[in-house]
Amino acid sequence: MKRYEELAEAIAKSIRDDVLKPGEKLPSVRETSKKRGISPSTVFEAYYLLEARGLITTRPRSGYYVNSSAKKLRPLAESKTEGLVKQQEIDVSELVFEVMEATRSRSSVPFGSAFPSPVLFPMAKLAKTMSTTVQKMDPWRTVEDLGPGDNELRRQIALRYRIDGIDAPVEEIIITNGALEGLNLCLAAVTRPGDTILIESPTFYGALQSIERNGLKAVEVPSHPDQGIDLDIFEEMIELYKPKACWVMTNFQNPLGSLMPDTNKKRLVEIITKNQLPLIEDDVYGELYFDDKRPTPTKTYDTEGLILHCSSFSKTMAPGYRIGWVSAGRFAKQVERLKLSTSITTSIPAQQTIANYLAKGGYDRHLRQLRHLLILQQLRYLKSVEQYFPEETRISRPHGGYFFWIELPKNVDALKLHRTALNNGISIAPGPIFSAQRRFKNFIRLNYGHEWDEQVDDALAILGKLIANQSDL
Amino acid sequence: MKRYEELAEAIAKSIRDDVLKPGEKLPSVRETSKKRGISPSTVFEAYYLLEARGLITTRPRSGYYVNSSAKKLRPLAESKTEGLVKQQEIDVSELVFEVMEATRSRSSVPFGSAFPSPVLFPMAKLAKTMSTTVQKMDPWRTVEDLGPGDNELRRQIALRYRIDGIDAPVEEIIITNGALEGLNLCLAAVTRPGDTILIESPTFYGALQSIERNGLKAVEVPSHPDQGIDLDIFEEMIELYKPKACWVMTNFQNPLGSLMPDTNKKRLVEIITKNQLPLIEDDVYGELYFDDKRPTPTKTYDTEGLILHCSSFSKTMAPGYRIGWVSAGRFAKQVERLKLSTSITTSIPAQQTIANYLAKGGYDRHLRQLRHLLILQQLRYLKSVEQYFPEETRISRPHGGYFFWIELPKNVDALKLHRTALNNGISIAPGPIFSAQRRFKNFIRLNYGHEWDEQVDDALAILGKLIANQSDL
Repeated sequence: MKRYEELAEAIAKSIRDDVLKPGEKLPSVRETSKKRGISPSTVFEAYYLLEARGLITTRPRSGYYVNSSAKKLRPLAESKTEGLVKQQEIDVSELVFEVMEATRSRSSVPFGSAFPSPVLFPMAKLAKTMSTTVQKMDPWRTVEDLGPGDNELRRQIALRYRIDGIDAPVEEIIITNGALEGLNLCLAAVTRPGDTILIESPTFYGALQSIERNGLKAVEVPSHPDQGIDLDIFEEMIELYKPKACWVMTNFQNPLGSLMPDTNKKRLVEIITKNQLPLIEDDVYGELYFDDKRPTPTKTYDTEGLILHCSSFSKTMAPGYRIGWVSAGRFAKQVERLKLSTSITTSIPAQQTIANYLAKGGYDRHLRQLRHLLILQQLRYLKSVEQYFPEETRISRPHGGYFFWIELPKNVDALKLHRTALNNGISIAPGPIFSAQRRFKNFIRLNYGHEWDEQVDDALAILGKLIANQSDL
Repeated sequence: MKRYEELAEAIAKSIRDDVLKPGEKLPSVRETSKKRGISPSTVFEAYYLLEARGLITTRPRSGYYVNSSAKKLRPLAESKTEGLVKQQEIDVSELVFEVMEATRSRSSVPFGSAFPSPVLFPMAKLAKTMSTTVQKMDPWRTVEDLGPGDNELRRQIALRYRIDGIDAPVEEIIITNGALEGLNLCLAAVTRPGDTILIESPTFYGALQSIERNGLKAVEVPSHPDQGIDLDIFEEMIELYKPKACWVMTNFQNPLGSLMPDTNKKRLVEIITKNQLPLIEDDVYGELYFDDKRPTPTKTYDTEGLILHCSSFSKTMAPGYRIGWVSAGRFAKQVERLKLSTSITTSIPAQQTIANYLAKGGYDRHLRQLRHLLILQQLRYLKSVEQYFPEETRISRPHGGYFFWIELPKNVDALKLHRTALNNGISIAPGPIFSAQRRFKNFIRLNYGHEWDEQVDDALAILGKLIANQSDL
């Protein structure tokens, strides 16, 4: 990351954290230059970038000011728990497919998309790496790398775990066709049809689809915007339903954006260890943190190999390459065999390319830039949402990832909104696809992972109007 | 294919078909040159190639002679049917994984392998194509190509179907992570846990694993070395067990090598149409034919979209790229959705690379060469087997693919043989992994898809001795 980008990020963080408040004046270029010991031109560039992103404004002959919002939306309330918990079979697929289909077209504004903008990734560098990799590829590797995957890639992933303080041996790592295949294999490894599993509410719709496909029953445990899954209820549900596994996102949960505090993570691991309950940890957003360091996965505290930690490079580096992995603990053998009998192995040119890209060492630099962009975009999108959405709207302020979880006025029907918005060329992810019981009727998930521009601003204005129309009914 | 290779292939075919018999003298170089209107040097090169492959011998001052075998092994007998049919749950995985594991090491002789030698494929050309492809890749395709897969690749596949006289619309084609993922998705699309499905006996062990994973019951219908699945019994079993689907390999069945005659294929389609029974057709070896033209898939005769035709490029062009497909007929929507919720999409650089390779038009030339090599190798391996294996051995003579199915003397235990052979650095595929009931105790599948050389010959000699040791007990 360049110097001026670092400075811009630092200022953006201060705005984010309310250290710099809306309307407040920034220190002058000269002051900042002196205080930080950097050249005035670097400060100028940083201020210019922040202005271009709509976060600050120049007032001639006066200075730079933090832009104020029209209003400030309230944070999300705690999840309500009454009447929530219910064991049931799942049938959300039809709805989910309809919503997913809508996000694929290049012509619609992709607020409903599950992916950040593909232009945020080092596609050119990957292409170059792939080009060299595949020209040197030893044909016999196509036979030797069957099953768990390319050894060098597994070693690189193990190294990254090591740096984060996690002991994940190479032998327990299985390369999968994206995180989703990994999550599916894990679920198949620890359950049989008819079993019950604990999930969060709201939860990633992919989990609901997996559960549906595997003929499992789900018990939804409420998750809170700040703390993640409710551990008291979680414990009660274990007693009550004797589940065979649980599926949790501890970092920047999709769609809530919640980040589970370390104390909760430790308690979660204690609970599953006491009950010998396998935990499938979906950690695909963990690298997209906005604070100082990568949040720990629960896997950090796992002493008995009960946690199957799943992640991928699809949201951080290489969308479309379809490279994910599982660090499967004591279930590694089962997951490896399921992989072999499901799809034999993962595309070998893609595996080797990512291994070589990681070995070259550009990944962390790219991640820093990506996080920086996402921080700025969150702020900019937030301003537009605050400007255009009704005052009763509540919104999450996640410390990572690229999703807002937005509670709209009570009488808004997110499914209806999804259809009207689509007619206006805008996709959204309506709340009910994140729940087996189709709760969250007046919630939407909004993707801020695409660069903010006037088209985005216009689309948010239109969306705001559509919401207002509905809430006035 | 070069001129001398074409000539060598024609002569090899004559040997294969017993037009040229062991010990028979070939026409002289001059005669052949004159008769075929090709230069003497081309004929020399062809003879040289055949000699290098061990198919003919020069006798000084006399001419070229077809090599004779030590003895001629009998063809396989018809499958026995008594006591065969039984509906049951399946549990073969442990055994299959053990065998698969043994074929992965570069140091063992891979007679047990499921793949032909990776050096037979156009890896360098693919690498070049991939290099250009990925450098031009539009990042937005990583979003648009979710689900069914890359449009251009699907179009290329539809074109190949069209040339073979099959109407498979692009919309019904789903790109999968190899044929195995496709077969698994098809099975999930047409069954529910507890359902019964009809399979062949012997059958591909991957089918048994899929059935096991999906909690299905299997009824094994005998397949014959010449005709494929026994249609009379097939029809009876539909009556008796009311299956929800059937899984059949009509072309160069794995492991039998059988090629179902067109009249049988037509009757098979009539039967499934009458009973509205979905047919999962595994056709991964169809392009590896030794006769004049590609054998038809049953899909050719399907008028009601009941056939889910699965294939891949893993055994014909691009091992390790993991690109397969399904032409799913009336089940296309279900298969597409299952793909989306299983692994979202298939590696996009690999998909686009294969689409571009197909568009350039080198695939058919490569296939001709590959078939040519396999014809020669089948002959050469056969000679060694005939030389070293006991006289009671029976062997298949498939018209395509790269597997022999070998019936050893009655008291040979193929599982024991597998373990002893492995101690001698040789892998084989023992018969019992091809049956839910672990039948075929004294059968093995032997891969002739790796170039014949002295090491191969030595390994076949050792294997012959191990078999003789066992059969003498």
